[in-house]
Amino acid sequence: MSERGEIGAGGLAALFAIGALGGLIGDMCHVQSGTTIYLEDPLPYIWESQLWFPLMVGAGTAALGWIAVRLGASASEDERAEPLRSAAAMIASVLALYALTAVVRGEPASVGIVLCYSVAALICARFAHDRVDFLCAALATVFGVGAEIVLSCLDVFEYADDVEKFVNVAAWLPALYLAYGVVVARLGVLLSR
Amino acid sequence: MSERGEIGAGGLAALFAIGALGGLIGDMCHVQSGTTIYLEDPLPYIWESQLWFPLMVGAGTAALGWIAVRLGASASEDERAEPLRSAAAMIASVLALYALTAVVRGEPASVGIVLCYSVAALICARFAHDRVDFLCAALATVFGVGAEIVLSCLDVFEYADDVEKFVNVAAWLPALYLAYGVVVARLGVLLSR
Amino acid sequence: MSERGEIGAGGLAALFAIGALGGLIGDMCHVQSGTTIYLEDPLPYIWESQLWFPLMVGAGTAALGWIAVRLGASASEDERAEPLRSAAAMIASVLALYALTAVVRGEPASVGIVLCYSVAALICARFAHDRVDFLCAALATVFGVGAEIVLSCLDVFEYADDVEKFVNVAAWLPALYLAYGVVVARLGVLLSR
Repeated sequence: MSERGEIGAGGLAALFAIGALGGLIGDMCHVQSGTTIYLEDPLPYIWESQLWFPLMVGAGTAALGWIAVRLGASASEDERAEPLRSAAAMIASVLALYALTAVVRGEPASVGIVLCYSVAALICARFAHDRVDFLCAALATVFGVGAEIVLSCLDVFEYADDVEKFVNVAAWLPALYLAYGVVVARLGVLLSR
Repeated sequence: MSERGEIGAGGLAALFAIGALGGLIGDMCHVQSGTTIYLEDPLPYIWESQLWFPLMVGAGTAALGWIAVRLGASASEDERAEPLRSAAAMIASVLALYALTAVVRGEPASVGIVLCYSVAALICARFAHDRVDFLCAALATVFGVGAEIVLSCLDVFEYADDVEKFVNVAAWLPALYLAYGVVVARLGVLLSR
Repeated sequence: MSERGEIGAGGLAALFAIGALGGLIGDMCHVQSGTTIYLEDPLPYIWESQLWFPLMVGAGTAALGWIAVRLGASASEDERAEPLRSAAAMIASVLALYALTAVVRGEPASVGIVLCYSVAALICARFAHDRVDFLCAALATVFGVGAEIVLSCLDVFEYADDVEKFVNVAAWLPALYLAYGVVVARLGVLLSR
């Protein structure tokens, strides 16, 4: 348990695929609900997303999982006993929260914020196991929200006018990245040996 | 644990009652939200449902629970220790998903689909215990969705125009039946001796 | 485990703070969504709430936690092993349900009622540990719903016209108080020694 794990090329490829596919599914919800709008489309679209989006989420997911494993995150007993069930529950939780951020678009700002942060806290409380998980949640939030702020300031995409903002991005965005960061750290551990 | 269980007349009656009552509660959500519309009413209404609906769901629930027990599904430790708590959580999960399929009516198709399938995956990951549970989920989906396709093609009822369709029925419908199938298999085990 | 616990001044102050802050957060959702409207404002507002509201919820929370501990409620193994994780999950669950009661405002009455009571049942099934928890849930419901009925009959505040009512208050209100009562009993135990 205290041995440092390692994540191989197969594990990194799986993390990339999970991140890219999950990003495409979630971004489809945001685009179709009008939550986000692409303002520039230099690259081809995949489903509703500009090509750079799934590549970026996939790469970030692989990097974050790698970091979690390198920093010594270890599996819980439940995860060891039933890795597939754990992974399915984690991925479904984050996708449900992603879709929820699209559902709350028409609601008053406070309702969407309270609901999304509460659900994110439930996901973290359910799945976080290691201190490293919270570090990964913080990294995901800083770099993920940071990247979205830069891209929206550069007018690459924007959040709809009626979405409550925090520096140009949705106020519920950190909640989504926090839950995502914890889950990716856990998936990294599940895919390491 | 490896002994084959049996479900008596009392257990089957309880499954029928849970299925019929749960069906009435969920169908009320669908009818009042305009998600589904009865086009023919040869029978009396119970709440918002034509009489055949709770009878069909009740009979299907009893049959599915019987199948699960006959195929050797066994209780998990948690279920054995706290059967009432387990049953309450399972039934409440499926009813919450049923109501959620009514809530997503006004949302873009992708948002409703991602949210309902993610929640269904969470319910399956939480409660499924045996391979038999997944077989029951598949049976429920094939026969449940199949029956609804036949009935809607016969113009007995229909899904609203603005609901995203998969062969005449809502695209999120398989998610509801998957979660329902897993939970009914578990309830059958809980009601067997 | 069978020793009667005690809750000190620090624990009561923490319960008061959790209740008052949680009440302010939830009431903000209700006021901003137009679910509830203050009709009299003799006192200053804190965020969106009249001052008496967080004081009343805070005092009720401290009293209910004190009662749970005095009646001998004891911690579960999970709670003992990870009190912070348990407390975070409990508080987040109730806040999510609070926000959900604001989200369902535009939905048909049945949908909101089924969704809120199902989620409340999930919270109770997840966290209730002792018989005392259900007594506290009953106390919270009787006194909480009772107080809101009295205050709305006195025209201190009202629920919006389009909210399905049960004697002047929202029909989903007992669900919120049931979940709140169970969670406050558990928080009392966690804060006792």
